[in-house]
Amino acid sequence: MRILITAGPTREYLDDVRYLSNASSGQMGYELARAALEAGHEVALVSGPVTIPAPEGCELYQVETTDEMYSQCEQLFKDCDGVIGTAAVCDYRIKARKPGKIAKTGEAITLELVETIDVLAELGTQKGDRWVMGFALESQDARFNAVRKLYSKKCDAIVLNGVSAIGSTDNFVEVIDQSQETVATYSGPKARVARELIAWIQAHIARG
Amino acid sequence: MRILITAGPTREYLDDVRYLSNASSGQMGYELARAALEAGHEVALVSGPVTIPAPEGCELYQVETTDEMYSQCEQLFKDCDGVIGTAAVCDYRIKARKPGKIAKTGEAITLELVETIDVLAELGTQKGDRWVMGFALESQDARFNAVRKLYSKKCDAIVLNGVSAIGSTDNFVEVIDQSQETVATYSGPKARVARELIAWIQAHIARG
Repeated sequence: MRILITAGPTREYLDDVRYLSNASSGQMGYELARAALEAGHEVALVSGPVTIPAPEGCELYQVETTDEMYSQCEQLFKDCDGVIGTAAVCDYRIKARKPGKIAKTGEAITLELVETIDVLAELGTQKGDRWVMGFALESQDARFNAVRKLYSKKCDAIVLNGVSAIGSTDNFVEVIDQSQETVATYSGPKARVARELIAWIQAHIARG
Repeated sequence: MRILITAGPTREYLDDVRYLSNASSGQMGYELARAALEAGHEVALVSGPVTIPAPEGCELYQVETTDEMYSQCEQLFKDCDGVIGTAAVCDYRIKARKPGKIAKTGEAITLELVETIDVLAELGTQKGDRWVMGFALESQDARFNAVRKLYSKKCDAIVLNGVSAIGSTDNFVEVIDQSQETVATYSGPKARVARELIAWIQAHIARG
């Protein structure tokens, strides 16, 4: 198969220096890329800014903002068999980005944030006979929100993980499929969880 | 001498996952720490989240928010002979940080940002007979703003660098002292610029 994987955070700028982001290390996505390559698949990895190296043999596309991630994915998805969306996309951007660096004045400033494009949901609407696996990071009503995302993003399966996964080398995940049930759970180092998830994809949602 | 050095970005959280920050790598501060140690000084390095290792032999204090950086520096500064402030401190924080992870609703959200404490200016008011070197990163009216900061932060000298310094391994800097004149310029790899700045401090602003 040829698999599209998104990874890392995105950044949304206030001005030329300051941005909104999160502490996603990209590790889960990079380990999935490595595991997919080891299993004999091709990987196109679209990644926000991270400090870890891409696994050898994978095509790496570096992006910064959510819009850039979407444009890159939209182009690549056409030629892929499925997508795994692990990126911790910034889902808000600053409505009016300022040029230069905003100088301090002693006054409070008010920022209007608007939602960014939902990368995985957009790919979901374009999926045709391709498969889509999402990741959900939820702090509350985790299962309910994960199932809601499964449907709104037209995913074949969604992987639920907790906020503690961010920046950690370990993970505990539940795979929820369209039955709305947890059909697999994996825990341990992200490298091992990644191999199990690739095996699960091959067994359950990959076509043909 | 015993030198306090601040480095890296700080982060200011919107909720438990999202934060405001910048792309500061911490490299200039870490190279100054290394150069100071090599020149026989003691170094207390107060650093925001970065991915580079601290030089061997330096005391490392890791912080995340601007308030944490200030508290740590206030404690350490008492026993130091001077401070070099290279940190790209987040100078705004979100007035009302939300618990958990804000869920998307489709609506825009409005954030009120208030200024954080000015770490170096606070240390400047407490400096007594200690020296203070600041760094200014300016996108416009660079020299004017650097001189304004020199006075408002009660610095003995301020190092002016451009926005292009962020995340780069090279730097071009001007040292401006209380005469308001550029008294030295250095360019090249940050490691070399750091050694020249430590030598400049020893020759010009270190007491005794």
